[in-house]
Amino acid sequence: MNIFKDNEHYSTGFQLDRDTLLTQVKYNNDGLVPAIAQQYDTKEVLMLAWMNAEALRETLQTGRVCYWSRSRNAFWRKGESSGQVQVLKSARIDCDGDTLLLEVDQTGPACHTGRRHCFFYKFDGNQVVIDGDVMIPPDELYK
Amino acid sequence: MNIFKDNEHYSTGFQLDRDTLLTQVKYNNDGLVPAIAQQYDTKEVLMLAWMNAEALRETLQTGRVCYWSRSRNAFWRKGESSGQVQVLKSARIDCDGDTLLLEVDQTGPACHTGRRHCFFYKFDGNQVVIDGDVMIPPDELYK
Repeated sequence: MNIFKDNEHYSTGFQLDRDTLLTQVKYNNDGLVPAIAQQYDTKEVLMLAWMNAEALRETLQTGRVCYWSRSRNAFWRKGESSGQVQVLKSARIDCDGDTLLLEVDQTGPACHTGRRHCFFYKFDGNQVVIDGDVMIPPDELYK
Repeated sequence: MNIFKDNEHYSTGFQLDRDTLLTQVKYNNDGLVPAIAQQYDTKEVLMLAWMNAEALRETLQTGRVCYWSRSRNAFWRKGESSGQVQVLKSARIDCDGDTLLLEVDQTGPACHTGRRHCFFYKFDGNQVVIDGDVMIPPDELYK
């Protein structure tokens, strides 16, 4: 039984039980899935981070995005030190159950560099060009 | 030396050498980085797949998106069996060099189910609801 595969042929509106589906999310060997955060109104992709089962459950229950920090090995309630929270607008999981897409309302910069989003290194021919300026310097964000 | 960290304070327009940067992409233990594909005009997030160093280099050089298929353990030139190609419009890498964001022009459905995008399982209270209908049935896509 694969809940994602078994139900993929249904049309818009077909309902599945959330808790059953949550048991079948395909976490990697570290128990994590990637979660893409997209600003809900502008559709800008802000960042990608990781969630374990508990972080996902907390996010769905509280409506405040909580990741798992791989560097700190701890829950990462987005904005807990910077104040730059992500309010959840919608959450989706993909066809094979191994990637999340979150529409969020991001306060200020999503990026630890103080930029709105993390994808500011842009490929341009033989160069990579910085595209995106710092909104709030990191030493103000994390003081 | 960490090219991503060392240059994050620069402003828009600052240039780095692409090939130097490519040597410092942070691949996971399987030699892969996640790549988010976003439709360039509508900003819809279509899918997430994985690239190794060669797939990334080929994508940048050819302008046709090439992933690494983890299930087939082979290059996955998007659309090679379905005809539903992704033309690269722009490529970005994030602040810590471990995630790619590709703006693409997707022909038809990006998803193997025949839907435009892969994120059609939407969380809705205690349910997960299918949101997104099949554009082209898979047996037509992969005949």
